[in-house]
Amino acid sequence: MIQKLDIKTHSRVELQEITGRVSEIIKASGIKNGVCHIFVPHTTAGIIINEHADPSVVEDISAQLEEIVPQKKSYRHMEGNSPAHIKASLTGDSRTLFIEGGKPVLGTWQGIFFCEFDGPRNRSVLVKLIADTV
Amino acid sequence: MIQKLDIKTHSRVELQEITGRVSEIIKASGIKNGVCHIFVPHTTAGIIINEHADPSVVEDISAQLEEIVPQKKSYRHMEGNSPAHIKASLTGDSRTLFIEGGKPVLGTWQGIFFCEFDGPRNRSVLVKLIADTV
Amino acid sequence: MIQKLDIKTHSRVELQEITGRVSEIIKASGIKNGVCHIFVPHTTAGIIINEHADPSVVEDISAQLEEIVPQKKSYRHMEGNSPAHIKASLTGDSRTLFIEGGKPVLGTWQGIFFCEFDGPRNRSVLVKLIADTV
Repeated sequence: MIQKLDIKTHSRVELQEITGRVSEIIKASGIKNGVCHIFVPHTTAGIIINEHADPSVVEDISAQLEEIVPQKKSYRHMEGNSPAHIKASLTGDSRTLFIEGGKPVLGTWQGIFFCEFDGPRNRSVLVKLIADTV
Repeated sequence: MIQKLDIKTHSRVELQEITGRVSEIIKASGIKNGVCHIFVPHTTAGIIINEHADPSVVEDISAQLEEIVPQKKSYRHMEGNSPAHIKASLTGDSRTLFIEGGKPVLGTWQGIFFCEFDGPRNRSVLVKLIADTV
Repeated sequence: MIQKLDIKTHSRVELQEITGRVSEIIKASGIKNGVCHIFVPHTTAGIIINEHADPSVVEDISAQLEEIVPQKKSYRHMEGNSPAHIKASLTGDSRTLFIEGGKPVLGTWQGIFFCEFDGPRNRSVLVKLIADTV
């Protein structure tokens, strides 16, 4: 079964933490051990796992992505959101993590972030859990 | 079982859509619900999921990757294709997506693109489908 | 079951090949066909699959990542390792590859590299193998 997280973003670029919501899906499933696949069904948004203790880390990630993919530049795609498409392909659209003891296995500092690059919008993130069979 | 898509590219850099071919593999498998893993067994090619409605989007992605990783620059690797290796590690070599109702679950604008960075060549993409067991 | 590779890095930036160690885990498991998920539980390290024949390739990848994400620049995060966080999100924290005949399925030139971006440190890489059920 595929589960869907509804996400509301509030600015053009916003890295919104979803770790707690992913953990809740895992807990509610009753799965103790397995794999958690996360997929972003958008072309101007991505997903990363990075530090959630100090919010300045994801601000630095956003700011450097803006440097790498300048907003003010001539692109062929006429909708004005080419930088968002490019950033989405640099961060990637999916992540796979492990489930152990009914919880996501993450390092001490790791949080899961939905990356809005062309907001504000209503978005979604798809989650699929696979329980160990052995 | 691992399935192989043979891919023929026609220029140095080419983002070739393979969504239809991946969908065919899923359909032919008879799997209704599960996971589809895609893996590129090359070091100078990658894979992304991005907009397939307007071809200028992937042109912008290619062009910006060229900006980020300039072709004309001195690299240590002597084969002249270091930029292709670097781009491959920025886009990544694998993607995981979901299968529902015998089809890949993709957003409205999403297409799967094989990213040739050192063509033209004969390439391959590996696909492995995992059916849900529950 | 999740298995852990202990990794010791020796410099600030170091791309350390772990292909042999991943192969050993697969061999020891007795799994002949399936999927191998690799996950890095750190926020200043990543993982890539790229050429392992000529070591200058990963040197070029490291060097270009330094160009894209300059070490000497003002960042908000005060620990001085923001570039490492950013690089980790550009390379990604996980990879999924296939197992066939008890071995990882990799292209001729492909090796798996743990990417240290904020070393030297003691690190770990998590590996989870899923055997085919069909």
